[in-house]
Amino acid sequence: MPDVVFSVDQAKSMRDQSVPGHNRWHPDVPVAVMVRPGQQIRVECREWTDAQIGNNDSANDVRDVDLTRAHMLSGPIGVEGAEPGDLLVVDILDLGPVQAPQEYGDAPGQGWGYTGIFAKANGGGFLTDYFPDAYKAIWDFAGQVATSRHLPGVRYTGITHPGLFGTAPSAELLDRWNRRERALIDTDPDRVPPLALPPLEQNALGGTASGSEAEAIARDGARTVPARENGGNHDIKNFTRGSRVFYPVHVNDAKLSGGDLHFSQGDGEITFCGAIEMGGFIDFHVDLIKGGMEAYGVTTNPVFMPGNVEPRYSEFMTFIGVSVDRETDENFYLDATVAYRRACLNAVEYLTKFGYSGEQAYLLLGSAPIEGRVSGIVDIPNACCSLYLPTAIFDFDVKPSAAGPAHQDRGQCAVTS
Amino acid sequence: MPDVVFSVDQAKSMRDQSVPGHNRWHPDVPVAVMVRPGQQIRVECREWTDAQIGNNDSANDVRDVDLTRAHMLSGPIGVEGAEPGDLLVVDILDLGPVQAPQEYGDAPGQGWGYTGIFAKANGGGFLTDYFPDAYKAIWDFAGQVATSRHLPGVRYTGITHPGLFGTAPSAELLDRWNRRERALIDTDPDRVPPLALPPLEQNALGGTASGSEAEAIARDGARTVPARENGGNHDIKNFTRGSRVFYPVHVNDAKLSGGDLHFSQGDGEITFCGAIEMGGFIDFHVDLIKGGMEAYGVTTNPVFMPGNVEPRYSEFMTFIGVSVDRETDENFYLDATVAYRRACLNAVEYLTKFGYSGEQAYLLLGSAPIEGRVSGIVDIPNACCSLYLPTAIFDFDVKPSAAGPAHQDRGQCAVTS
Amino acid sequence: MPDVVFSVDQAKSMRDQSVPGHNRWHPDVPVAVMVRPGQQIRVECREWTDAQIGNNDSANDVRDVDLTRAHMLSGPIGVEGAEPGDLLVVDILDLGPVQAPQEYGDAPGQGWGYTGIFAKANGGGFLTDYFPDAYKAIWDFAGQVATSRHLPGVRYTGITHPGLFGTAPSAELLDRWNRRERALIDTDPDRVPPLALPPLEQNALGGTASGSEAEAIARDGARTVPARENGGNHDIKNFTRGSRVFYPVHVNDAKLSGGDLHFSQGDGEITFCGAIEMGGFIDFHVDLIKGGMEAYGVTTNPVFMPGNVEPRYSEFMTFIGVSVDRETDENFYLDATVAYRRACLNAVEYLTKFGYSGEQAYLLLGSAPIEGRVSGIVDIPNACCSLYLPTAIFDFDVKPSAAGPAHQDRGQCAVTS
Amino acid sequence: MPDVVFSVDQAKSMRDQSVPGHNRWHPDVPVAVMVRPGQQIRVECREWTDAQIGNNDSANDVRDVDLTRAHMLSGPIGVEGAEPGDLLVVDILDLGPVQAPQEYGDAPGQGWGYTGIFAKANGGGFLTDYFPDAYKAIWDFAGQVATSRHLPGVRYTGITHPGLFGTAPSAELLDRWNRRERALIDTDPDRVPPLALPPLEQNALGGTASGSEAEAIARDGARTVPARENGGNHDIKNFTRGSRVFYPVHVNDAKLSGGDLHFSQGDGEITFCGAIEMGGFIDFHVDLIKGGMEAYGVTTNPVFMPGNVEPRYSEFMTFIGVSVDRETDENFYLDATVAYRRACLNAVEYLTKFGYSGEQAYLLLGSAPIEGRVSGIVDIPNACCSLYLPTAIFDFDVKPSAAGPAHQDRGQCAVTS
Repeated sequence: MPDVVFSVDQAKSMRDQSVPGHNRWHPDVPVAVMVRPGQQIRVECREWTDAQIGNNDSANDVRDVDLTRAHMLSGPIGVEGAEPGDLLVVDILDLGPVQAPQEYGDAPGQGWGYTGIFAKANGGGFLTDYFPDAYKAIWDFAGQVATSRHLPGVRYTGITHPGLFGTAPSAELLDRWNRRERALIDTDPDRVPPLALPPLEQNALGGTASGSEAEAIARDGARTVPARENGGNHDIKNFTRGSRVFYPVHVNDAKLSGGDLHFSQGDGEITFCGAIEMGGFIDFHVDLIKGGMEAYGVTTNPVFMPGNVEPRYSEFMTFIGVSVDRETDENFYLDATVAYRRACLNAVEYLTKFGYSGEQAYLLLGSAPIEGRVSGIVDIPNACCSLYLPTAIFDFDVKPSAAGPAHQDRGQCAVTS
Repeated sequence: MPDVVFSVDQAKSMRDQSVPGHNRWHPDVPVAVMVRPGQQIRVECREWTDAQIGNNDSANDVRDVDLTRAHMLSGPIGVEGAEPGDLLVVDILDLGPVQAPQEYGDAPGQGWGYTGIFAKANGGGFLTDYFPDAYKAIWDFAGQVATSRHLPGVRYTGITHPGLFGTAPSAELLDRWNRRERALIDTDPDRVPPLALPPLEQNALGGTASGSEAEAIARDGARTVPARENGGNHDIKNFTRGSRVFYPVHVNDAKLSGGDLHFSQGDGEITFCGAIEMGGFIDFHVDLIKGGMEAYGVTTNPVFMPGNVEPRYSEFMTFIGVSVDRETDENFYLDATVAYRRACLNAVEYLTKFGYSGEQAYLLLGSAPIEGRVSGIVDIPNACCSLYLPTAIFDFDVKPSAAGPAHQDRGQCAVTS
Repeated sequence: MPDVVFSVDQAKSMRDQSVPGHNRWHPDVPVAVMVRPGQQIRVECREWTDAQIGNNDSANDVRDVDLTRAHMLSGPIGVEGAEPGDLLVVDILDLGPVQAPQEYGDAPGQGWGYTGIFAKANGGGFLTDYFPDAYKAIWDFAGQVATSRHLPGVRYTGITHPGLFGTAPSAELLDRWNRRERALIDTDPDRVPPLALPPLEQNALGGTASGSEAEAIARDGARTVPARENGGNHDIKNFTRGSRVFYPVHVNDAKLSGGDLHFSQGDGEITFCGAIEMGGFIDFHVDLIKGGMEAYGVTTNPVFMPGNVEPRYSEFMTFIGVSVDRETDENFYLDATVAYRRACLNAVEYLTKFGYSGEQAYLLLGSAPIEGRVSGIVDIPNACCSLYLPTAIFDFDVKPSAAGPAHQDRGQCAVTS
Repeated sequence: MPDVVFSVDQAKSMRDQSVPGHNRWHPDVPVAVMVRPGQQIRVECREWTDAQIGNNDSANDVRDVDLTRAHMLSGPIGVEGAEPGDLLVVDILDLGPVQAPQEYGDAPGQGWGYTGIFAKANGGGFLTDYFPDAYKAIWDFAGQVATSRHLPGVRYTGITHPGLFGTAPSAELLDRWNRRERALIDTDPDRVPPLALPPLEQNALGGTASGSEAEAIARDGARTVPARENGGNHDIKNFTRGSRVFYPVHVNDAKLSGGDLHFSQGDGEITFCGAIEMGGFIDFHVDLIKGGMEAYGVTTNPVFMPGNVEPRYSEFMTFIGVSVDRETDENFYLDATVAYRRACLNAVEYLTKFGYSGEQAYLLLGSAPIEGRVSGIVDIPNACCSLYLPTAIFDFDVKPSAAGPAHQDRGQCAVTS
């Protein structure tokens, strides 16, 4: 019976909760609650944008989203006895959309979620050069299953998981992050979308910190977008119920924070906001392996054991991509990013033959339980990646045959006005 | 009952077979045998280096391997009625090591196989900056299972698959390949290892071609190392028994060729010669979808449906990597290659805590049925990749616990003298 | 967003709910609520004995349970337009233990559940000749996982499912049931435990029926213990989330009722009360296939498609049994019941070598996600059944080895005083 | 590299091999070859009837088969050091149809196999009261896949396994078998088909035994049809490649024998000859656990761990049966045999709606990789069994829908003239 250690009123901004969360990584964000090893806890979460997106048929809200407010995290949870060098052992016992009595409402996670393609001018995404505008699909939840009026013909069983959890960085680690990301930005400071996001005071939220402490968090706190040494925005779809995660501990009390819950996601989360995004709850069991970082050599990134209750599919359409730009014929050297992008584009092209628009296909690949694999990474000069699309999520036959594809009108996703 | 349409005497070089194979891609390699849609065929194959590697405890042969002879391919198989624009439908009915009466012998695939780490000075591999020397592990086959005297403590059930199959390129496509790869090489022509391999007359083999035809193949034929639009060296571990592959057809008769059979491989084949390499046989059923490239939008790379008889594991240790160089703290922009390399290095570091040498761990990750996934590819600036290592392949407990890792002496792989 | 169409206050008997349920099958139990095809509904349930069992360390409550009150069913749910001959299509969207705000409490399903071995004198079970007394194990729920202080060393991920759902019988069908079961009872009317349970007025509950209608239900209504043509107490562990069930419709409005939710169960539910029993909720989507019974030949029993989110295990210890009584050496003719009993007893004997008591092993096999298969049913004279026990549910190595079993003190389950 | 320790010329009867096999269980069948713990061995096998069935379109051979010759077993294999009380550890490394150079020919296993429904007058089967005549389907093997001209619309990936392997009984154990089976026969000695098969001198084969030894084997040797304490004719479809079996040892040297290889089979092997029957080869690794019977309580039947390379399906049509005879409305008490028969008949009825004849459906259910489960065995008076039919083996949609079943002419199986 988990103890609710961080609660959320879905009708309010994270900023206005009785105990507010935070949206920057910093060692000095005050602990919201202390727990002890062996305890089972429930953490309630807001959707990552703090519920800026609505259950409607316009993508204007996606186009205009204010990313300075993201990600709204619940925590930090302090763990008694945790010290730098330990491994924080976190079992994901359960997670899901918002529960009763808040189960229906206007915030994502209250019976529904969404997948968004961000505009190139505001965040972009993996295929942003091919899809520079904003699009959206709304999903309705029925138990374990999601369907979308914007993507007829598919149903997914959710592989629910948190996009983002992590421990607090030490001051030294935070400094390393800021320096190395600044160095990257400086290589092309005016790029759109940018190469990385530096600390930003605008809309920074530091939990219960106030005064000079809050100012330091706003000034120096790392943005939450990437995954880093503390965990962070992994967006790993197999971080699901039943997983056991081993986080490196960088500060006393570990200070575990997170959120960005997903109802479903494909490997890569390719539309940037590619999962089915939602608020909700997550139940943990927490424990410690004292001195575990050195003992197990887990010194750079967390390790984990994935859960055992995700749906398993037995038939897939697989799309291959290699690290060559088809349009320009430029050949990249063992570049898995280019290869996976090509695999995604090949899948988009294939799905349009069945009547989906390109943006529908892109939304589908972001949110469906696809697998994206690094298949060959040594065969110079071409990296080879492969994308596995489960055929059972479609209510029509998506396999090739001599009869040709069953093309039909499949509507359209939400677009901008 | 498949018809043996390409046979191999494992005691002889591919060059000396009654019908020799080829080791360059070129539209004019003469068809070795014609088959018809609907036919079931068996193709026998040599190990990819033409059996330069021996069943012994020295890695000198790996260090000194002559790569100009690779990959030795069986074929081309001409398919009646195939024309450019069609999809060649290939079912992989069965494949395995060399069969009776040649089942035991000195060539890889005759009861044994090997995994090699190539020296940086001769080919290199995914972690070549960390492991610049040559190493080798020999594997013994017992039915579906492989074990290695050089890697005690692990047993794999093979996910047998061909590393390399493909259709012949058209003259125009070949020309594109040569131009774009030359352009890449020219960006750093003296690099070791090189960025790509240009056409090379030395040791070129053009099947039954002779005279000026053979000379043209040797002069212009594309090297076989990468995957390209025709398929090629995909090294996709799930291209296994039961798979159905749809290859684009670029020339009349399709001209299917291949080889480079693997007993097992992990996603990425990270040691370059990372699979368990072997000669053997492969049984196909071939068919055509006329005009299928345009009908299904399969215009750039093959698509396929993976097989259904590979072993499924239910428990994994998962290693995460992000696109930051740990040693230099350089931050790369959404670079999945760097992220997957970091995940691999994290796994190596972990396994050494149990007593494996780094090179043993590297060999293990190249050949074991690991999954390598592109987990997050949009969270600027860090790509996030994850590596799933099935725990059941170990005969000890490889999971973290408060008791610490069970370190013991696990010997060593074959090294150079 | 399912509509809560049947709600339960877990602090009260089913008899005292605002809309009471029923515990007999009869066509005249009044519809509790009407729903329409296409609707998503939530049904709340009491644990099957109406919460006679407590979260404590004594099995006296199991020994003394009053079975005349079972099973307490929620419903009947009337479906608009349903007529005899139709198939009622029921999707199980979700189910689980009791939800907030009733999630903790004294009734099974409020954060905990139990498994019981019934005394031979009061119900018995599959191995009742070997275990004639009452025993109990209490399970604590943590998200998807159950553990028991009475069964140390095991953890199960729940395959949650309803033990019992079904449509109302027609008057004619009910009459057939009563006649054929009476005929069976008459072959050995004094047997303990009895061969079957005839209608019984004591403690009969007919929903909102009153007066002569309630009397008729009490007098003629079929007991709920067995599975029959209407579905009923199937106790099929794979009737889990994501399942689609096709129930024959025997009366207008179909009148779907059920309950007896299980957190986990092994094939056979061998202790009689062998699942982890709980109250809770179940979410359905309902639909109709008009005339489907004849069209699909589904005229005798329901058919279903199992769900896709149960845990999958990849390693099992398998126990075989054949239809011979080991103690008496009596040989039964192709008797799968005797063969499966032998497989169960063989598994019990094996587990005691690791330190479990026989009754602990029996409780474990009733509730763990074991598979029980009819392996050979034609090889005269011996039926052969097999029992698959997943090894991953144990925190010790349960496989045979030359070293012998790791015997240790594993405590004891709840016993009678 | 397994040593071929028992070889078979598929053109000859088992009786005429250089080292003949045997078709009765008896402790005195002479060891055919000795092996040592740790050895890898290959055993070649004849199809179980000694190849009485032909690759043709008449079921006359099935109708007239001489069962006194069955099962033709390869062995006995003696294992050095094995003594009564040990467990013989047998790993199934590989198995398959007849290999080169005998891969094509007239004996089952030479590129083809068959499934038979035996006539009630000659063996019968699980549904013999419903299908009293003889029928047959011929299967063609293509790598891992079987298809049948007699069963259009289905393709199975084989779950290859041996139907029958076991150790020799001790004299005392053999005596128990003969006594208890005789007692069963005596309860209805004239039954057709018989309740059990007593020892029979006609066509008995005792390996290399001669003279009085051969006479004793013929006179007292147990028939090979059922599974018993030594293993025997288990017909467990999951005894596949990768399995590890632990056989009780009853005599010195263990004396392992077997055969009856199957390309595919459903749980229950319901047509009696319901698998896809073939000759072929099987590769073993053998080992011993000294004193293992007592240490692990494996005193009655073997235990095993199933293999990990069988195909896994993710979607099933499931048929339920309870222990009531639909035609007579007789109610049986917790009779899993009756319940599973009803589930089978329900599946047959369903499949006929798609155009299969009843006997085609019956042949399909015998040979396809169906799962047959003991679902509920305690809910008095009705046992409940369930039959899981994977939908992916059909090339049409076999699920129910509002549109009704896709009925079409699906030909017919081989019948008698």
